Amino acid sequence: MLIKTAEEVSPEVVREGINIRWLITKKDGAPNFAMRIIELAPGVVFQPHNHPYEHEIYVLQGVGYVTDPTGDAGKMKPGKFLFVPPDELHGYRNTGDVTLKFICIIPNQE
Amino acid sequence: MLIKTAEEVSPEVVREGINIRWLITKKDGAPNFAMRIIELAPGVVFQPHNHPYEHEIYVLQGVGYVTDPTGDAGKMKPGKFLFVPPDELHGYRNTGDVTLKFICIIPNQE
Repeated sequence: MLIKTAEEVSPEVVREGINIRWLITKKDGAPNFAMRIIELAPGVVFQPHNHPYEHEIYVLQGVGYVTDPTGDAGKMKPGKFLFVPPDELHGYRNTGDVTLKFICIIPNQE
Repeated sequence: MLIKTAEEVSPEVVREGINIRWLITKKDGAPNFAMRIIELAPGVVFQPHNHPYEHEIYVLQGVGYVTDPTGDAGKMKPGKFLFVPPDELHGYRNTGDVTLKFICIIPNQE
């Protein structure tokens, strides 16, 4: 059994203001999917993008919006969860004054 | 895109003091894995058990312990995450005075 604290996992910088912590991955023996935490600094806008795999997301901290090509698609705040199907365009923006943090699960990549 | 609040999803009673909310499942189009929230009332002990699939867990609220057949295996509190490999015996106990809540992801079952 692996038991750790998210803070123990070093963040990887995706780009300025966007970090990712890979909590549980194939390297830990996870056979099917990876648990990550995504962190967006206040003011950060992550433009809509897509990929051939889904996201299952649960918001832990902060406030913002999930976006699609038409604009804001829904509010993000603690207790909100999102399912983004494979290939669907999605982005995020942090509209609060603390880091927007959310769990984001993806299937293991080949 | 599915965007909801965990509280909108009705809890299913597993047994007295143990609830599960199925946030994202195959019915929502999720191709690979399901996101649930498990809720244990104060004082609840969920004895070690196992199954042929893994858990990826992130603690949202409360305090307690994850257990194995030898006793307490690690502290559970917000920010802690756990990987329980397939077939490994694991249980939980809520040692605090509020509901112990955690996200628990499992692969889709046939």
